[in-house]
Amino acid sequence: MPDATNLLDLNYIASRLEGLEETIISKLIDRAQFCVNEICYEAGKSGFTGEPSRSLFDLRMHYHEQMDALFGRFCAPEERPFTRNLPEPQREVVLLETKLQIDDLESVNFAGPIRTQYRKLIKQICRPGDDGQYGSSVEHDVYAIQAISRRIHYGAFYIAECKFRGDPDTYRSAIDARDIEKIEKMVTRKEVEDRIIDRVCQKTRETQKGVNREIRQVIEPDVIVQFYRDTVIPLTKQGEIVYLLHRRKTDDPSEPITRTTWKFKW
Amino acid sequence: MPDATNLLDLNYIASRLEGLEETIISKLIDRAQFCVNEICYEAGKSGFTGEPSRSLFDLRMHYHEQMDALFGRFCAPEERPFTRNLPEPQREVVLLETKLQIDDLESVNFAGPIRTQYRKLIKQICRPGDDGQYGSSVEHDVYAIQAISRRIHYGAFYIAECKFRGDPDTYRSAIDARDIEKIEKMVTRKEVEDRIIDRVCQKTRETQKGVNREIRQVIEPDVIVQFYRDTVIPLTKQGEIVYLLHRRKTDDPSEPITRTTWKFKW
Repeated sequence: MPDATNLLDLNYIASRLEGLEETIISKLIDRAQFCVNEICYEAGKSGFTGEPSRSLFDLRMHYHEQMDALFGRFCAPEERPFTRNLPEPQREVVLLETKLQIDDLESVNFAGPIRTQYRKLIKQICRPGDDGQYGSSVEHDVYAIQAISRRIHYGAFYIAECKFRGDPDTYRSAIDARDIEKIEKMVTRKEVEDRIIDRVCQKTRETQKGVNREIRQVIEPDVIVQFYRDTVIPLTKQGEIVYLLHRRKTDDPSEPITRTTWKFKW
Repeated sequence: MPDATNLLDLNYIASRLEGLEETIISKLIDRAQFCVNEICYEAGKSGFTGEPSRSLFDLRMHYHEQMDALFGRFCAPEERPFTRNLPEPQREVVLLETKLQIDDLESVNFAGPIRTQYRKLIKQICRPGDDGQYGSSVEHDVYAIQAISRRIHYGAFYIAECKFRGDPDTYRSAIDARDIEKIEKMVTRKEVEDRIIDRVCQKTRETQKGVNREIRQVIEPDVIVQFYRDTVIPLTKQGEIVYLLHRRKTDDPSEPITRTTWKFKW
């Protein structure tokens, strides 16, 4: 954990994003040990007392995020919630300036599309059918989707702010003109994207190399590659654009501190 | 997930135990990305409002298990809770006979020693010191310790029942005589233990092979080997002995069903 002075160092950000790759891969592998279990995602089929409408997945997500909220998870910019009506943190928090320049972290919340894409991913990584292990399935869904969301939002906030600071005038004029096409071009680094995809492919292969395939379900590296290419990278980039469009007009350091200028050490 | 008929098949049990190795290793690697953060385990230092005595780890464990209890986790024999005063499940449960012959699953609960040994393990896998990331640390503690506990209790219940059925008369006389030394000798399979330890060593190495050590904290295979040798295997064996000592005198299949004869598909 760096101090506030290097939170916006591009090497530090890149290393955090790289470190999150193993986390995403291992959590997806854990989920893949259970069947698709489609019923977990069907509204009104949770089997919960007094819950006529939500799915088991929705319920697990909500209960988990209620707990996380008490512990302060959502004070961290990269931890954006999937559910609403969450309680306030019950912990004293250690605050560190994030140096992000945005008034409401929730302006950059991609929970909706992440959820949609994750649901499709389940069908690609898990054996089809139903093994009855619904509790375990949704438990691991929450861990996996939170790891994916953390990666996307972390990139969206910090890479965008970092890039902005590298060329503030050009970004400022593109932002003022609401020139989304130009902003998108500016935040795109094709060679970095290719490097990430290669790395993720290799990690997925190497992590599972020694695995006994008779016992453990294996995820094909191509599936993760495709997920990074079609979901993680584009959503991070969209997140960067949304962040930049919501970025404050003035970076006044004496500005009264809002939640969004704090770094909660979750 | 097998049907009830092969839950006590030794090959099936061995394969489940083997499959849990990757889960334990990957969850320990996740925890190892944060410092020891000793304060998380100190009573009264959670920073939680209205919580003068519990540690942050204890609180996270308790909140997590409260949620898990609602979802029915602790109906499964291998899922023994670390905390008390948990609510009843709020879900309809799909029940499957476990064929275990014990009246109270909680007779075989090794949460105490698992917790003690896990606390020692943290110091061996994590960098020393404090990085302020307390929320993440205890979150990953819960995932890791639950995976370890599942492996130990799963082995304790099912391997013991399976071994008993392989030689019921000899086991019955040793149990009746409370001859713990003899039971211990009977449940010990040195060559199986050695094979497990070799496999765990290799998996820990292979899983982390492609990792960028500048970014990710790596766990030395020896640490996991030692943990399996000094904790996982001995506690599983102690669990088997305790299970056998509490095993019902008569295996009457027409016996009224208690919680303990059910398999909750968690």
